[in-house]
Amino acid sequence: MPSKYRNFRNSVPWLILFLEAVFIVLFYFLFSANEASRSSISYPAFQDVSHMVIFGFGFFLTFLKRYGFSSTGFNLLITVLGVQCSVLIEGLLVFLLQGTNEDSLKRITKAAMTMTAVVISTGAVLGKTNPVQLIPMTVVEIIVFRMSRWINNVFLQVPDNISMMHVHLFGAYFGLAVSSRFSEPLPRSEKNASTPKLDLFSMLGTLFLWVFWPSFNSILALNNRNAIYNTYFALAVSAVSAFVLSALTTKDGKFRMTHIHSAVLAGGVAVGYAADSIEYPWIAMILGLLASVITILGSYCLQRCLNPVLKIHDTSGVHFTFGLPGVLGALARVVLFVVQNWAVSPRLGYLVMIDIGAFCLTISVALITGFITG
Amino acid sequence: MPSKYRNFRNSVPWLILFLEAVFIVLFYFLFSANEASRSSISYPAFQDVSHMVIFGFGFFLTFLKRYGFSSTGFNLLITVLGVQCSVLIEGLLVFLLQGTNEDSLKRITKAAMTMTAVVISTGAVLGKTNPVQLIPMTVVEIIVFRMSRWINNVFLQVPDNISMMHVHLFGAYFGLAVSSRFSEPLPRSEKNASTPKLDLFSMLGTLFLWVFWPSFNSILALNNRNAIYNTYFALAVSAVSAFVLSALTTKDGKFRMTHIHSAVLAGGVAVGYAADSIEYPWIAMILGLLASVITILGSYCLQRCLNPVLKIHDTSGVHFTFGLPGVLGALARVVLFVVQNWAVSPRLGYLVMIDIGAFCLTISVALITGFITG
Amino acid sequence: MPSKYRNFRNSVPWLILFLEAVFIVLFYFLFSANEASRSSISYPAFQDVSHMVIFGFGFFLTFLKRYGFSSTGFNLLITVLGVQCSVLIEGLLVFLLQGTNEDSLKRITKAAMTMTAVVISTGAVLGKTNPVQLIPMTVVEIIVFRMSRWINNVFLQVPDNISMMHVHLFGAYFGLAVSSRFSEPLPRSEKNASTPKLDLFSMLGTLFLWVFWPSFNSILALNNRNAIYNTYFALAVSAVSAFVLSALTTKDGKFRMTHIHSAVLAGGVAVGYAADSIEYPWIAMILGLLASVITILGSYCLQRCLNPVLKIHDTSGVHFTFGLPGVLGALARVVLFVVQNWAVSPRLGYLVMIDIGAFCLTISVALITGFITG
Repeated sequence: MPSKYRNFRNSVPWLILFLEAVFIVLFYFLFSANEASRSSISYPAFQDVSHMVIFGFGFFLTFLKRYGFSSTGFNLLITVLGVQCSVLIEGLLVFLLQGTNEDSLKRITKAAMTMTAVVISTGAVLGKTNPVQLIPMTVVEIIVFRMSRWINNVFLQVPDNISMMHVHLFGAYFGLAVSSRFSEPLPRSEKNASTPKLDLFSMLGTLFLWVFWPSFNSILALNNRNAIYNTYFALAVSAVSAFVLSALTTKDGKFRMTHIHSAVLAGGVAVGYAADSIEYPWIAMILGLLASVITILGSYCLQRCLNPVLKIHDTSGVHFTFGLPGVLGALARVVLFVVQNWAVSPRLGYLVMIDIGAFCLTISVALITGFITG
Repeated sequence: MPSKYRNFRNSVPWLILFLEAVFIVLFYFLFSANEASRSSISYPAFQDVSHMVIFGFGFFLTFLKRYGFSSTGFNLLITVLGVQCSVLIEGLLVFLLQGTNEDSLKRITKAAMTMTAVVISTGAVLGKTNPVQLIPMTVVEIIVFRMSRWINNVFLQVPDNISMMHVHLFGAYFGLAVSSRFSEPLPRSEKNASTPKLDLFSMLGTLFLWVFWPSFNSILALNNRNAIYNTYFALAVSAVSAFVLSALTTKDGKFRMTHIHSAVLAGGVAVGYAADSIEYPWIAMILGLLASVITILGSYCLQRCLNPVLKIHDTSGVHFTFGLPGVLGALARVVLFVVQNWAVSPRLGYLVMIDIGAFCLTISVALITGFITG
Repeated sequence: MPSKYRNFRNSVPWLILFLEAVFIVLFYFLFSANEASRSSISYPAFQDVSHMVIFGFGFFLTFLKRYGFSSTGFNLLITVLGVQCSVLIEGLLVFLLQGTNEDSLKRITKAAMTMTAVVISTGAVLGKTNPVQLIPMTVVEIIVFRMSRWINNVFLQVPDNISMMHVHLFGAYFGLAVSSRFSEPLPRSEKNASTPKLDLFSMLGTLFLWVFWPSFNSILALNNRNAIYNTYFALAVSAVSAFVLSALTTKDGKFRMTHIHSAVLAGGVAVGYAADSIEYPWIAMILGLLASVITILGSYCLQRCLNPVLKIHDTSGVHFTFGLPGVLGALARVVLFVVQNWAVSPRLGYLVMIDIGAFCLTISVALITGFITG
């Protein structure tokens, strides 16, 4: 086996190098002179999303003992590959469909947002994959996510900012599907152990995500201010209820850090879909509360009941951190839309359809990826 | 005692949950549709204040060995509770006094600034309190600080941005008063010990505070640029003199980290009151120098002489970090005003009165809180 | 020796204090009332540069075991001293040459950018100098760099934003020259050892630098958006190739952290000179790739062959991290200019001359500094 491992080790750099060469060649053909038009996105807003992906997710995933530095490093590697890939696909779509080019800053901002899906999926398979498996996964996931967004935009008339919010849902279920193809790691070995010092880094990552989430939800929203305000309150309430529920569900009444990590962010995920259309802060607050409850209960139930049955081993708990609140948020958006219009519009069935569509795509692609990497 | 402790443990989550429910209900009644008017505060400016409270103070307080993760976590919990509470009180005041609503972003920015007081007070009682005591303290402190600001604004005609700068002074003396109600912890046990790794996190927090302080001082100021410029130079000089004085006061000539932590920030606190009215940078620089001197000498004298007499145990040294430079800053503002106008105006006596007023309020409320939690 | 060491220890604070007093006196004479005109530089842009210098370089240099806290602390001390010194020199130049005052924010932004040179030089001599040596080095380096920029601007007609980009080149070679005056430290003792926990902090610093580099390159550029876009892609490609090359050059195929630290940033350095004039992203990407290759090969060759011969001990590898990519970037700018104008303009020889000029100045001053501190 060691020779095979060495063999694989040697193939990683060439794989990446080949990918990078393809990227540069495609960039040469696809992108003509940069147009320096004023963008609808300000540079600080782009920086916020960039920080979130690089720092937030980079350190969010440092809590495993053996993967401290690696996860931060790989996160950077995957992010920069993914952003280039995502910008390329966008350019290819514009070229094929004769669309109009978006300005360059908006292009990389969207690419960075797309990377959230990949990083979340990475969280699910962390500790079970190696780079050779992660890199094709990244490329495939970005292509499939763009396809699913394109289907949503064109056939289902979903506005662009909403289809982008599917990113958490897509990332979580894609990651879970990939994860189910890998064998459960041996008895909870030291690979999954956590150390207090790394916990602080992980907390740093969580705080980065928490602080920049309003930027993430508002960057593409039409009603910016509203999205910021609602996201902030949803995050605040979900942080409060994360502490409450963590203390209630553990036997000794202590706060458990993993609970807090995941539940603190649930509010931001859940409110993402409807952030700019919610009119009253209390609705956002209740949504944050529900998201947090779902996350903690989910972490309790799923790890006990569901995971052993489906043989899913979800290292970072992305299912309940990003998957379930995402579902809640999508549902909440439908309910709010129905309540606001007092009549069941055709959007109801169609939004549900989108979720199912994304879900099906995810599973099918995940299986293919599983076979390729297996 | 363990049963009592378990009992208390069980009551924490219910207390927080009750508080959160009250908040949501009040939000439902108080805040109608968010108005999406353009704000006088930009989103990046709000982000700076938010980072400062979440990261800066969160990691500033990590230096105690046993409280590494807890202090960061509690800081988040207290901040989100406090911001909601503060926004509510603001809304209640508008409702009761038939005032005009400020836009939503300014509201949460001010709430985040108010939280600085609570976080500073938390620093003073760290290691001696438990969450059940901290949470009522937070709520009481926010209400009292808003009352004191309201009195300042209405009866004493203090402009809004100056009354907000009392936040450090209020926080420090409130915390000290609360702290004096608690018994001194047993012989300087390992609870107060620090480890080199946590020191780096604490340094990270200090740097966060240092970098974002100009934002804090300028966000409400009328003359933005001037406030940024003056604060930057005051911070720079106080950082320089912090290193100098730390080396001079210790026997072996080494830099002592606790000195640096507190003295580096003293300049920012001291210059806060007058940041937008100082015309020459050298005045800000001298103010920064004086603040740093006062802090280091204060830390030397207070811990030797005053604290044993008054039985105050000031865990994080908030008295000399935020209290004394705050007093200096308030005095400096008076002196500068007098010098600029060449005639002793009635503002002199009245500014001193404000300080005394804030001080008295602090002590009285702190005693009440002490009895409640005792 | 201990008595001499104590003696030196005692002289540090007085030296700094004297310097600070001189600064305040000069500030008193040089800067009249701050003019609060609107600046061409936004406050968030200044903040980005400030973060980069304080956090990025502060934590970038924490990887040595014994210098964890010290390097972060000294970085702050040197930065604040240097910024004041730099602002003063700018003011002195305006006073002497009867120029017009720039607005205050632009002044401190430029001062913070100038500090990059000093911080890079510090990286080269880290672990071999003490504060008494570092502080005069800082002052001398700032004065000389300003002189070299002034010569470039006035006699060679280099635009201001390009002359500022020489900062990496100047810093690296100044540091190397100073470093060559110190004796090689004894057998690679524990002073150069690194610990995994500090590695994470160092990674944090690298990420900070990576994320804020587009701000650094674009802040003075005329075509802002273009500079951001090109820098981002150059950084992305150099991050990818850093991982690739690190795996290829090491025997076991593992990623080596020091490679990644330096190569990840090389793209940003190299693209700095031409960031706003590159029209196609693929050029920036190829530049990023080349910079990364040069850095890794440089680190391999230099440490094996050149350094033992020249007796240079480059602690943080600033030669290949900042020096070589800087040379590449300057050359790339010339090549691009030639290609774009299809005729060899006189700028070619003159740009090369600037580099040589800066290089010569560096070496000569470095020798003088070496004698002073020796």
